[in-house]
Amino acid sequence: MQHPLPGHILYGGDYNPEQWSEDVWLEDMRLMKLANVNMVSINIFSWALLEPRPEHYHFEQLDRIMDLLHEHGIAADLATATASPPTWMSRLYPSMLPVTREGVRMSHGSRQHYCPNSPDFRRKSAALVQRLAERYAQHPALKMWHLNNEYGCHTSQCYCDNCAEAFRVWLQERYNSLEELNTVWGTNFWSQRYYEWGDILPPRVSPAQNNPGQTLDYWRFMNDSLLGCYRIEEDILRAVTPNVPLTTNLMVAFKPVDAYDWARHMDIVSFDMYPAHGTDPAWNALHHDLMRSAKGGRPHMVMEQSPSQVNWQPQNPHKRPGQMRLHSLQGVAHGADGILFFQWRQSKTGAEMFHSAVITHEGDEHNRIFKQAAQVGAELAKLSASVAGASTQSDVAILLDWDNWWAVEYLPGPSNRLKYMEIVGRYYHAFHQQNISIDIVKPDSDLSKYKVAVAPLLYMLSPGAADNLENFVSKGGTLLTSFFSGIVDENNHVALGGYPGMLRKLLGIHVEEFDPLTPAMHNQVVIKEGALAGSYPAELWGELVHLEGAQALGTFTDDYYADQPALTVNHFGSGNAYYLATQSSQQFLDRLAQEICQQAGVQPLLSLGSEIEVTRRVTSSGDNIYFLLNHQQQDQQVTLPGGTYTSLLDGETVKDQLTIPAMDVVILQAR
Amino acid sequence: MQHPLPGHILYGGDYNPEQWSEDVWLEDMRLMKLANVNMVSINIFSWALLEPRPEHYHFEQLDRIMDLLHEHGIAADLATATASPPTWMSRLYPSMLPVTREGVRMSHGSRQHYCPNSPDFRRKSAALVQRLAERYAQHPALKMWHLNNEYGCHTSQCYCDNCAEAFRVWLQERYNSLEELNTVWGTNFWSQRYYEWGDILPPRVSPAQNNPGQTLDYWRFMNDSLLGCYRIEEDILRAVTPNVPLTTNLMVAFKPVDAYDWARHMDIVSFDMYPAHGTDPAWNALHHDLMRSAKGGRPHMVMEQSPSQVNWQPQNPHKRPGQMRLHSLQGVAHGADGILFFQWRQSKTGAEMFHSAVITHEGDEHNRIFKQAAQVGAELAKLSASVAGASTQSDVAILLDWDNWWAVEYLPGPSNRLKYMEIVGRYYHAFHQQNISIDIVKPDSDLSKYKVAVAPLLYMLSPGAADNLENFVSKGGTLLTSFFSGIVDENNHVALGGYPGMLRKLLGIHVEEFDPLTPAMHNQVVIKEGALAGSYPAELWGELVHLEGAQALGTFTDDYYADQPALTVNHFGSGNAYYLATQSSQQFLDRLAQEICQQAGVQPLLSLGSEIEVTRRVTSSGDNIYFLLNHQQQDQQVTLPGGTYTSLLDGETVKDQLTIPAMDVVILQAR
Amino acid sequence: MQHPLPGHILYGGDYNPEQWSEDVWLEDMRLMKLANVNMVSINIFSWALLEPRPEHYHFEQLDRIMDLLHEHGIAADLATATASPPTWMSRLYPSMLPVTREGVRMSHGSRQHYCPNSPDFRRKSAALVQRLAERYAQHPALKMWHLNNEYGCHTSQCYCDNCAEAFRVWLQERYNSLEELNTVWGTNFWSQRYYEWGDILPPRVSPAQNNPGQTLDYWRFMNDSLLGCYRIEEDILRAVTPNVPLTTNLMVAFKPVDAYDWARHMDIVSFDMYPAHGTDPAWNALHHDLMRSAKGGRPHMVMEQSPSQVNWQPQNPHKRPGQMRLHSLQGVAHGADGILFFQWRQSKTGAEMFHSAVITHEGDEHNRIFKQAAQVGAELAKLSASVAGASTQSDVAILLDWDNWWAVEYLPGPSNRLKYMEIVGRYYHAFHQQNISIDIVKPDSDLSKYKVAVAPLLYMLSPGAADNLENFVSKGGTLLTSFFSGIVDENNHVALGGYPGMLRKLLGIHVEEFDPLTPAMHNQVVIKEGALAGSYPAELWGELVHLEGAQALGTFTDDYYADQPALTVNHFGSGNAYYLATQSSQQFLDRLAQEICQQAGVQPLLSLGSEIEVTRRVTSSGDNIYFLLNHQQQDQQVTLPGGTYTSLLDGETVKDQLTIPAMDVVILQAR
Repeated sequence: MQHPLPGHILYGGDYNPEQWSEDVWLEDMRLMKLANVNMVSINIFSWALLEPRPEHYHFEQLDRIMDLLHEHGIAADLATATASPPTWMSRLYPSMLPVTREGVRMSHGSRQHYCPNSPDFRRKSAALVQRLAERYAQHPALKMWHLNNEYGCHTSQCYCDNCAEAFRVWLQERYNSLEELNTVWGTNFWSQRYYEWGDILPPRVSPAQNNPGQTLDYWRFMNDSLLGCYRIEEDILRAVTPNVPLTTNLMVAFKPVDAYDWARHMDIVSFDMYPAHGTDPAWNALHHDLMRSAKGGRPHMVMEQSPSQVNWQPQNPHKRPGQMRLHSLQGVAHGADGILFFQWRQSKTGAEMFHSAVITHEGDEHNRIFKQAAQVGAELAKLSASVAGASTQSDVAILLDWDNWWAVEYLPGPSNRLKYMEIVGRYYHAFHQQNISIDIVKPDSDLSKYKVAVAPLLYMLSPGAADNLENFVSKGGTLLTSFFSGIVDENNHVALGGYPGMLRKLLGIHVEEFDPLTPAMHNQVVIKEGALAGSYPAELWGELVHLEGAQALGTFTDDYYADQPALTVNHFGSGNAYYLATQSSQQFLDRLAQEICQQAGVQPLLSLGSEIEVTRRVTSSGDNIYFLLNHQQQDQQVTLPGGTYTSLLDGETVKDQLTIPAMDVVILQAR
Repeated sequence: MQHPLPGHILYGGDYNPEQWSEDVWLEDMRLMKLANVNMVSINIFSWALLEPRPEHYHFEQLDRIMDLLHEHGIAADLATATASPPTWMSRLYPSMLPVTREGVRMSHGSRQHYCPNSPDFRRKSAALVQRLAERYAQHPALKMWHLNNEYGCHTSQCYCDNCAEAFRVWLQERYNSLEELNTVWGTNFWSQRYYEWGDILPPRVSPAQNNPGQTLDYWRFMNDSLLGCYRIEEDILRAVTPNVPLTTNLMVAFKPVDAYDWARHMDIVSFDMYPAHGTDPAWNALHHDLMRSAKGGRPHMVMEQSPSQVNWQPQNPHKRPGQMRLHSLQGVAHGADGILFFQWRQSKTGAEMFHSAVITHEGDEHNRIFKQAAQVGAELAKLSASVAGASTQSDVAILLDWDNWWAVEYLPGPSNRLKYMEIVGRYYHAFHQQNISIDIVKPDSDLSKYKVAVAPLLYMLSPGAADNLENFVSKGGTLLTSFFSGIVDENNHVALGGYPGMLRKLLGIHVEEFDPLTPAMHNQVVIKEGALAGSYPAELWGELVHLEGAQALGTFTDDYYADQPALTVNHFGSGNAYYLATQSSQQFLDRLAQEICQQAGVQPLLSLGSEIEVTRRVTSSGDNIYFLLNHQQQDQQVTLPGGTYTSLLDGETVKDQLTIPAMDVVILQAR
Repeated sequence: MQHPLPGHILYGGDYNPEQWSEDVWLEDMRLMKLANVNMVSINIFSWALLEPRPEHYHFEQLDRIMDLLHEHGIAADLATATASPPTWMSRLYPSMLPVTREGVRMSHGSRQHYCPNSPDFRRKSAALVQRLAERYAQHPALKMWHLNNEYGCHTSQCYCDNCAEAFRVWLQERYNSLEELNTVWGTNFWSQRYYEWGDILPPRVSPAQNNPGQTLDYWRFMNDSLLGCYRIEEDILRAVTPNVPLTTNLMVAFKPVDAYDWARHMDIVSFDMYPAHGTDPAWNALHHDLMRSAKGGRPHMVMEQSPSQVNWQPQNPHKRPGQMRLHSLQGVAHGADGILFFQWRQSKTGAEMFHSAVITHEGDEHNRIFKQAAQVGAELAKLSASVAGASTQSDVAILLDWDNWWAVEYLPGPSNRLKYMEIVGRYYHAFHQQNISIDIVKPDSDLSKYKVAVAPLLYMLSPGAADNLENFVSKGGTLLTSFFSGIVDENNHVALGGYPGMLRKLLGIHVEEFDPLTPAMHNQVVIKEGALAGSYPAELWGELVHLEGAQALGTFTDDYYADQPALTVNHFGSGNAYYLATQSSQQFLDRLAQEICQQAGVQPLLSLGSEIEVTRRVTSSGDNIYFLLNHQQQDQQVTLPGGTYTSLLDGETVKDQLTIPAMDVVILQAR
């Protein structure tokens, strides 16, 4: 499957001309050209217009929009319009409306008011997609399909009777027998044994906490249900337009939707990126790396970002001057070949009328927001030839796993302070701040190309993943993992006989007890010698660790596990496996990551220090393109390694000392 | 329509004799006389007693109470008893019970368990009112009708099917066509277009935020629905007893009920006044001024205040000695001709048994609370001849608008920190603390009698109101308005082409961006010269303002709009229009108001400084009566302007220096 | 009714072999013997296994477990298995599922998903219990019946139609007529009068606060409903196995379940004890004293405690080394003759798989948790001969009353800061920290054996209880009571004519006003002379108190009741009645209790100071056994009063000076 516009970085945004009269459309075309827009997403919320009455389809307006785009040389990312059904749908098919855990059936009046397992929704949306596909299969503006929109955004879990029935079918496919389900779910606990499939329910509200097996499988099932909706559309589109690439906009690392599962069905991974004011740039980088990695390193795209303020956070300050450009180029730096906005023209009514757009309420090109967007458009156009399609190479892999995410945050549990992505983010930050390129991959994926694998909070571990980690380390890899890892198998059954179960041999330790700390409880890690010598906070979690071949690098200072190991390393085969039994400061983690990289032979890109973010993309001809991003409010001076570089944004030749202004970016092609 | 007791300040309270045996009633009469009570509200929660079975009415007990009051020379404010239906009503007509946004149908068991659009409720309550009116039309105790009670207090929004149906009818009256509704609501957004009236629902719970047009119209509709209940009773009562004045007790500035709409149907505006412990006296004053202004300046009344503690705040301390008296006389000072309590005798059972009453659980006259009430009764009797009917004159108007309130607090929106009444209160405080009399009027009302108009956060602005403001300023008036004003029209459609839309010419500015601040973000306003020279905090909100004829009085100091205007004034016609683009400290606002008053020629009453609250009422013969209220815990000494005064409470002659004890009041008639 | 194992302290835990294969059962037996286990609770959650289909019972597995226990000399506390119905029950009888106040019907999927008033649940559970009783009546392992489990834990209030109907029946039994109910509930307030029994509902969600009489009676009714379930099982078991003692596990002082009511139907009072990390040891002691007192001083038992961490608190740290032992022996010190755990073997699946157990996930005896449990088992075995059956004698009684608890926390009320058990706990702590033995009894119980009675926050007071207190004091007893006492009678009707109503004469005071303080309000109590001379904080509550015979020991310093009494004592008959009109510091309350004890001739046990907790049990032969518990992290040295003692845990002879190590216990038998 080809990129929609080969050799181009995609640039544009959601375009909703149906909110405006046709004279505005022509002005939009003029302004799009002015801003170097080359692709827009259309038709996202048009179902009500396309099918005003059941089976009565009206494509005339969409025809005009498609034609207009083509006339102006702008590609259409054509949405299937299935994200928000018309109001008559919920009148005719009331069971289409989603139901909360408490049994409240939602109404229409906002958006995404459908149960993903509703047969009515599935049938009606398939019919719409079929007609759309057939009508526009040959339209020259059609360059990409945009399936539905933000799957799971508002309705990631439905608990209706349709879902109950579909859940039972799903379970029957997963488990060979009811007996197997009873065993996996452990239903002899609390008298929960099922004797009929029909007795199984979604984890609806009940007097106490629901069975964790039921709860975990419901996460899996709902992810599959949403993906099922996607796949219905996918099958139609691949049949009718086999050469048009498919995407849908994922939503960063979003708990209900397993990006790895979905990426397999997408030709281009795209996602929506809305960092809150003040977000750590490493957090943005993490999500870009995930989206790129989800499709095996192929360039991804930002389907939505805001030109400036949004309207749905508690308070919505503008992105500061330069910030949108910095975010956009950071995306490209991490492998994105497309930067699109929500949305092109700011609505004058509706729930998002105060969400910024490229064309503001002022309606013209003479303002800060448009000017900046136009500048970025021009710069991306300039970069396209060198950068589009270039790849990313990483020595470090962070292991991320949705099943683990769903399982480890089950509550009540050992601690309500365990937030998986927050902890992953801490480990990511530690490597990223060194300017080391990171892939974010599944624990059972091929790790042979990496030198270091990092597995924070890997509570749930399948035998295959455990073998994979052993194999990786035995062949010389370095593993860093953390407390509360290796506790359960993929059925959420505890590894009996001593934690950390299947990691015990690899890590060379035995964890007798894990001890979740309250916010009032504190311990410390002391390291007596070496590069990390010092004393560091230990928060959130403690453990009683015994060595079984590993070496203790650091120990706890307090409580009943004082002087017991807190940080260990085990030499295993040709590699090393590190274990950190607590949560320390970010500063400590940064230093630990640095130490591990040095020992594993992983080098920072350009060695410019941590004040500047540096990434690299490698062109098909093998050229290195370095992105130097200054996220600080102050200018930064750096000294480049030997050789000369071409600065792609201004075409100048650069060597030795270089000043990167505050909030600015320099992109260097090595010669 | 006449005042119920001409020449008297009304004094009394809610009287619920049905909770007590008849021997207690006689004791009540004795104590009422002792306390100078001249009016009581009765029958408020008596429906269950009046109609124990459907269509079986029993008025005998009420007859006795009415007779007893008449015998003792006490006027009856006779309630229509419709606020709480009998339990058999909800059994016979279950659809009468209100339904929450989540679809939960309420039960009886407390009070106000009716949907205002229930045909059953409306029919049954009308029948009761008809019979009450006919029975007591000629009763000499009847001096005023009290319709229902605290409309909307607990059930201000119902989402049942009756409401859905009534909403559609209301919308059909408002909009000429479904097409117009679709346009106004902007339903091309999110695929929300309606093709049948029957598809429109109340803004019930849905996956994301409901359409803002739907939400705004639902506020309007529910206000009209409640008012519809009132008007059914009004029609009956005006037909049967055309000379008896009507009221209902509003609840301060209460978001669900638009006081201006309602006042048009009331002969006397009354309201319930329950300031929490430690409330700023200016906040109380604001609500009095609103209630007086809602009826064009005619004296209003306090229908309920607590003699001391209430029972429904988180903690319920007593009003401190003197405080109830101070509040009561502050009411009179701001134009009230009636001060009534909830309630006369404290209940020994029921949900409000710990709400204080004039007669406490002790049951006699020998305690602090009764004694204080009796003192106030005696003082009001003394004041009646001079004060009752006297009017209030103001040079300053605060503009308040319920549609704006409903629209500007829609969430998610630019900021969840925008609380309309809180911001209005800040502007009110700034003028009130100078002892400048204030009216609180609608933006489209006649402003010709005012020198200064203040329009905080006037987000929603109709063309008529915009013209009104231009007209006011062009003829010499001074306008002060704030950030996030003039953004949308009455349909909640954004003013395209540059904020602040229809205010742009009047204010002489162009706001390119508004920038809601998080609590962690701070800016400053600096004013270089003049009376306001100095540096002040800028919180909550910033803006990027360009001058288009206005003059910048102050500028921001930080962020990307540093050195750009923060406070502007525009000379427009013969007047001036001020704009404050942020929220500064109360102290700054106080100084700004002072400066504006000086320039507009608005003088503080008596010029006694801000330690004493001063108001003035003007008698029909043109005499000035000054109220001097000391809300401080310390005595205050003031120097009166030349001339002598009669102190109405003690009859003494006063001139020059005067000491007002802590928490005390002096009322002076100028001679 | 006999103790299940005469002469033994019971030791063991919940045993759920159905979660494991049979080979594990034999290993369990070996380990139980190793840990000195002599009793286990079985069958608690086995209904689904026992009755896989309606009317098809399968007892074969339970037979094997019972036989196995008997073979190994371990007694069975056999549960009736009714706490969690099988899933087919809720399918066949959907009205069996409980309903929330908002009308949400719960689902199965966790546990305790039954409405206690469901006729289906009652019929089916009775049938199961009948069969269990008949099958195991003669089984030698059967030593105790464990009825259901943690009644009311998750579903303490159901609001379904079954409950509504049962509530009406309950009310008809309580009240002679609807008129009486109307009077008691005060339904003339808010038009709530009932004309038909059928109109009465549970206090389901309604627009405002529900009637307090309805609410209070619903607490009483639901307690009776749960007890009704218990009594159905009780009747069956007493008929079939009249000699087997009955218990159910209460849950400390649990608001929905009145321990005094229930204890009358239990042969041994048992309860579940799960103090959070850092809980004050006095709080644990209080609950032991309550459980012992509830059955008139007969030894109680701990049915569940955790060996170490639990899984359902926000964070779940382990019990520190020694802490479980200390808690266990503290239980024995306060009269417990049984210490059982939840649970024996830690689950590998299910919602509680991270709740600690005696056998951890390691599965063997070689870890801290098992070793400690085995040590405690050995020590209890050693203590059994001396301690089992020994009684406790107290001079001080704390008065506790569930009706008062239910009534005084009704909201909205005077203050939402009134937490009854928290305030009781403060008074308990004040006496307990002196090492004075305390019983916790009902206000109307026989107080003649006590020297001091303490009645904190005794808001609700029946005439009988008031007489009881007068009688107690007049005969020489000392009463200490607090603010907001004596306010209402058992119908929740306010005592008119002056607070504190029926306590007015006894206390010699008249409270004109009570004044709930906000967190921002503070006052002080000053005491001018005597042992308590000093100045103390006054928080939460103030009062305006007048003396009517009492003497003011302390006065308030501020506000309008400055210099008025805050602490009074009244000489009444031969005794004294103290009244504290505010909440002061714990330190002040400790000193006040000390002073009162001195004057009442109540002596601390052994006079060892407050660093060590001391209790005493008296054997049937009159020997004193002293328990000395060191809850501190430091060793404590104490000097024993004259005489020699035998240290029961190590058999040594002890006199004079004694060191008690940190977290350790010494148990001394006086010779």
